[in-house]
Amino acid sequence: MGWQPTLLLVIAIWLVWNGAVLAADTTPESLPESLQVTVDTIWVLLCAILVFFMNAGFAMLETGFCQSKNAVNILTKNVIVFGVVSLCFWAVGFALMFGDGNAVIGYSGFFLQGLDLSPLTDEHYSGVFDSLAWAGIPLDAKFFFQLVFAGTAATIVSGAVAERISFLAFFTFSAVLSLVIYPMVGHWIWGGGFLQTMGFWDFSGSTVVHSVGGWAALTGAWLLGPRVGRYRPHGENTIPGHNLAISTLGGLILWFGWFGFNAGSSMTADPAIASRIILTTNLSASTGAVAAAVISWLITSKPSLSMIINGALAGLVSITAGCAYVTSIGAIIIGFIGGMFAVFAAGLFNQLRIDDPVGALPVHLVGGIWGTIAVGLFSVGPNINDWHSETSGPALGFLLGGDIKPVLIQITGIVIVAAFVSISTLFSWFMLRIIFGLRVSHQAESTGLDLSEHGLEAYPEFSQRSLPLNNLFHSVKDNVMKSNTSTLNH
Amino acid sequence: MGWQPTLLLVIAIWLVWNGAVLAADTTPESLPESLQVTVDTIWVLLCAILVFFMNAGFAMLETGFCQSKNAVNILTKNVIVFGVVSLCFWAVGFALMFGDGNAVIGYSGFFLQGLDLSPLTDEHYSGVFDSLAWAGIPLDAKFFFQLVFAGTAATIVSGAVAERISFLAFFTFSAVLSLVIYPMVGHWIWGGGFLQTMGFWDFSGSTVVHSVGGWAALTGAWLLGPRVGRYRPHGENTIPGHNLAISTLGGLILWFGWFGFNAGSSMTADPAIASRIILTTNLSASTGAVAAAVISWLITSKPSLSMIINGALAGLVSITAGCAYVTSIGAIIIGFIGGMFAVFAAGLFNQLRIDDPVGALPVHLVGGIWGTIAVGLFSVGPNINDWHSETSGPALGFLLGGDIKPVLIQITGIVIVAAFVSISTLFSWFMLRIIFGLRVSHQAESTGLDLSEHGLEAYPEFSQRSLPLNNLFHSVKDNVMKSNTSTLNH
Amino acid sequence: MGWQPTLLLVIAIWLVWNGAVLAADTTPESLPESLQVTVDTIWVLLCAILVFFMNAGFAMLETGFCQSKNAVNILTKNVIVFGVVSLCFWAVGFALMFGDGNAVIGYSGFFLQGLDLSPLTDEHYSGVFDSLAWAGIPLDAKFFFQLVFAGTAATIVSGAVAERISFLAFFTFSAVLSLVIYPMVGHWIWGGGFLQTMGFWDFSGSTVVHSVGGWAALTGAWLLGPRVGRYRPHGENTIPGHNLAISTLGGLILWFGWFGFNAGSSMTADPAIASRIILTTNLSASTGAVAAAVISWLITSKPSLSMIINGALAGLVSITAGCAYVTSIGAIIIGFIGGMFAVFAAGLFNQLRIDDPVGALPVHLVGGIWGTIAVGLFSVGPNINDWHSETSGPALGFLLGGDIKPVLIQITGIVIVAAFVSISTLFSWFMLRIIFGLRVSHQAESTGLDLSEHGLEAYPEFSQRSLPLNNLFHSVKDNVMKSNTSTLNH
Repeated sequence: MGWQPTLLLVIAIWLVWNGAVLAADTTPESLPESLQVTVDTIWVLLCAILVFFMNAGFAMLETGFCQSKNAVNILTKNVIVFGVVSLCFWAVGFALMFGDGNAVIGYSGFFLQGLDLSPLTDEHYSGVFDSLAWAGIPLDAKFFFQLVFAGTAATIVSGAVAERISFLAFFTFSAVLSLVIYPMVGHWIWGGGFLQTMGFWDFSGSTVVHSVGGWAALTGAWLLGPRVGRYRPHGENTIPGHNLAISTLGGLILWFGWFGFNAGSSMTADPAIASRIILTTNLSASTGAVAAAVISWLITSKPSLSMIINGALAGLVSITAGCAYVTSIGAIIIGFIGGMFAVFAAGLFNQLRIDDPVGALPVHLVGGIWGTIAVGLFSVGPNINDWHSETSGPALGFLLGGDIKPVLIQITGIVIVAAFVSISTLFSWFMLRIIFGLRVSHQAESTGLDLSEHGLEAYPEFSQRSLPLNNLFHSVKDNVMKSNTSTLNH
Repeated sequence: MGWQPTLLLVIAIWLVWNGAVLAADTTPESLPESLQVTVDTIWVLLCAILVFFMNAGFAMLETGFCQSKNAVNILTKNVIVFGVVSLCFWAVGFALMFGDGNAVIGYSGFFLQGLDLSPLTDEHYSGVFDSLAWAGIPLDAKFFFQLVFAGTAATIVSGAVAERISFLAFFTFSAVLSLVIYPMVGHWIWGGGFLQTMGFWDFSGSTVVHSVGGWAALTGAWLLGPRVGRYRPHGENTIPGHNLAISTLGGLILWFGWFGFNAGSSMTADPAIASRIILTTNLSASTGAVAAAVISWLITSKPSLSMIINGALAGLVSITAGCAYVTSIGAIIIGFIGGMFAVFAAGLFNQLRIDDPVGALPVHLVGGIWGTIAVGLFSVGPNINDWHSETSGPALGFLLGGDIKPVLIQITGIVIVAAFVSISTLFSWFMLRIIFGLRVSHQAESTGLDLSEHGLEAYPEFSQRSLPLNNLFHSVKDNVMKSNTSTLNH
Repeated sequence: MGWQPTLLLVIAIWLVWNGAVLAADTTPESLPESLQVTVDTIWVLLCAILVFFMNAGFAMLETGFCQSKNAVNILTKNVIVFGVVSLCFWAVGFALMFGDGNAVIGYSGFFLQGLDLSPLTDEHYSGVFDSLAWAGIPLDAKFFFQLVFAGTAATIVSGAVAERISFLAFFTFSAVLSLVIYPMVGHWIWGGGFLQTMGFWDFSGSTVVHSVGGWAALTGAWLLGPRVGRYRPHGENTIPGHNLAISTLGGLILWFGWFGFNAGSSMTADPAIASRIILTTNLSASTGAVAAAVISWLITSKPSLSMIINGALAGLVSITAGCAYVTSIGAIIIGFIGGMFAVFAAGLFNQLRIDDPVGALPVHLVGGIWGTIAVGLFSVGPNINDWHSETSGPALGFLLGGDIKPVLIQITGIVIVAAFVSISTLFSWFMLRIIFGLRVSHQAESTGLDLSEHGLEAYPEFSQRSLPLNNLFHSVKDNVMKSNTSTLNH
């Protein structure tokens, strides 16, 4: 008689209880979960904004390293390229890269009309990489982050082909690169394609961004040939950059933006991994700069500013693939070798008479290759950084685990990307040469592309090239330098 | 007999239960709520810091677009204007704009002594716009975000009046603008005033910031008259900017800062809306740049760097009002028309002989008007973006819903603001003309404002204007350009 | 008979209940707690990235304020110094500064192998300052934030010793400063050392960073002596900076980065304190700029751009120690006095014939001392800003509470740091003089350090110093200025 009500009570309490717990489970959890998405999103957006700013860095770096008569041309290329890539990558590129598709290419989500897999649209929040639901942040944020990467790849090309390429050819090539070539490689490595399946790892794009840009730059620079007067039958003429102040500014802007480039690539705001990436990125850049300083000091007995800037950038490119996977010591070694390679590779490309006015090849191509191999050498293995699931992250590197396989996989990926990008960009450059012509006339090159291609001068009040006395000035310059006229009192 | 204890038990459990649930409700909610405030605050602060950096963007853009003999003057204006606005807007402007008041003006909270409606001071967290408690972030953060906007409005003026205005007049005008004129318009549209009530929408300030600055720039440039030698009886003399490298840098800094300008305006870190705003902002800037490139290419057969920079900026100004309310396609159309307008409006103002050295009017005034109208044309309607409450957000735009009313409301607002700002700034400029004089002497203008107003030169080692050979140089310049002297080997 | 089951029921419910509440307590709390760490970490990282960008600010500021013939040298110093400091501070400096140790020095955690006290490694989350567990963010993030501060201290020196120091000497001195001298002072004040125990407060480093850099700069500038031709027996020759556009850019980049410098120092993302710091920082910078404008205007009848830039920077240095502890009014007064001191101190150092090409001493040394004293004058006392525990934060300032003791403690700290840094840097400079020599030859100084130390020119196309006509130009310059040749039509 006393048991029934109690039993009823128990059942009643149990039901209420479960409902309440369920409610309690939902309410407090849903709030933090959406907060996690919020934090992830603003982190990725801010990182992407930093990467966007790298456009200014490239513009200043490249312009300063070239002659003043081509400054307007380089500046124009660097501004318009991002506009062009924005539209192309939005309409087509992103779909080919991250859309649902096969192992070679994506074919859905054109014009960003894809499925938004973020929890904001009631999809499950994953927060880990996955070929489909690779982050919980909104699609618009994913796209913008990937867009600024695509812009970087296109911008790398502009430096190597500077001072002689026609504006129309470059404009069109940027579109082709961001429409098809870059997205395809990106799909293979980041979009669930065959290189990702194979176990090839490239965290932030030493290969996807920098080598792709580098190979395109190499084929362009090679096809275009060197600038008029750059090489003599037995030697070379250095054509100095016209403004090392803005080049240095550009280099430091790139270093600044690179923190976003590498740390945003996790697509989540994981405190441990973000902090680690920023640490390794900075250590590698620093040792790259120091390596280039020391080596240029030893070789030429004077530390070279341009080498130091490019050394830092080479350190940054080199750590890009492995920033999340290596130790501090690993980062230091990777950066040092990257900076060293940048100095020596610059000489090598000169030997090959491939004229690269800003040093894009030693930095982005060589650094990108080295950084990708370095993952196979220095990775601490999966399951170390707690944000990795057990099956995620590259295998223990050769130098730590003794297994050469990870290195071979990385090299395989590098070779495949090299072959594809070289051939496809060569084909593209050839087509552009047939349609528009690639290179400006020698007369336009002598005058400078600013006047011939844009009808503007960057520094009209200071242009010495239009002064008849200029030749006189230069002829007496060496003598004057020896006499060291002091100008302290002006 | 068996029922009473059970009943007591039920009651006891019920009481404990409620207390516990209440406690459970409070504890886990309060933590995420304060975390939400934290995330909102750091997001808004970081966006505001990006907008602050636009001061550097304006400084570089305007300086590079002017002559080197006025560089120090423009740089000084751009630095000091933010200092002046900081103090004026803190003391008075913010109170007039956001303080409790009537439909025309606020009149409380001077010296930032207002009620802090953030949850940190025990007020309810709203997180949505509201004329009073329009965000949950601390008052200091709201103020700083609004301050950098006020600074932008004042800075816009400096470009249009450059190379001839007296420093003292500009200094004082900046104070007047940020003390009274800008805050009053801001109150009408963002501070609960009559335009806001009327249904006028301007998300990030195409009207509040850019048109206000633009009208003030127009009256100033008109009253001052053109620079000496700018116009001939039947034609014009182009006065080229002295350094397009820093102008380009300035343009890219502005683009960079604009992400904060637009995305921070929600005053909350909503992942969906922040991502959407950054996407639309970038698409509009990109199409603005491409539009200006294509149109200047078609008209002059050469793509113009200055047009491309101003096209991108016009795209940015144009999307500012509607960045949160339009689709990607909408953003692309808005930006394209904005960039196109920038090219044609520059010609129009020249026809009117309104001398605007940096193109502030085509970008900020025309772009601001167009962007504000565009909200009435392209808005997707309220209740679409989930952060809007049902009654919030502009009505469905004319091109999507067919109702012309939203467009008419936007135009009404534009006209009212135009009338008020034109008259009040004209009055202010007149008063300043009476008190100090507005314009420097013709002699000072010829010498350059750097020496006459500041006693400094920006580039003392390179100043060609002080060289007697300069005229000689310029007289032979055209001939030399045709002969294309190569300087490759120097 | 009816009671037992009910009793059992009660016990059962109680047990389940407790378990559930415990679970409910754990789950929703742990998520926000880790989220709090996440938000703290990304805030500190983003602030640190902003501070990193100050390297670009210093590079542009200093380069523009010096002569073009030394531009490459200054740029190189500013890039390489951060690379050197990154490695030195990682290997040794951070351990001496924040490692477990005694009241004078830390001696654990070399090569960043210290205990990570963040909750991510199962340590308790504190979120308040504490000599050991001073923040809940990961060790890597703490380190990076502290690293960019160490880099700032080293960079300050480069400006004051510019245009005459040998590159090797500066390179080595940077290493010494970041290896030992800076970390020791840092340990005393921020690492649990004797000044911290004594009640000396310096929130973001007016003393730790700016005065330390300032004293090192003073001893260096004094030992090196002035540049050749800088002072006459009875007077001085002004050596104008070669590019005030990039100097202004540098100044604005520094202002931009300073928001991270000051607001990140709480090491947590507290919305109230972060907003407050950014407000006070900006007000102080603004009044510093306005003060310098007004005072230079009154003294020379022309507002000086270089004074305004240095005034803003002095305002920033001055608020650095007290940004979290003072009111808006306090910040305005501190900044005004800081900006005023910057103008007058520049004259004073000139009287003392200490040649400081960029004004590092008036800004960083004088501003740093004044800002540190200002904490003792203007602090609102502990327990006001809610993030302070009762025993945290400086005592009520003299001007608010009438107790002179806080001022005396601050002065004691300043004197101790002055003595230590002066002596240790003097010793270091002396050792470097013996080993390498400190100063370049007079011939190298006349030629410029760019050619003598680096074999490069910053602007090879524009270098007028190598032109024989240059002296002619300068001799006729004054006459020409009076005749005001117009160049409007070129």
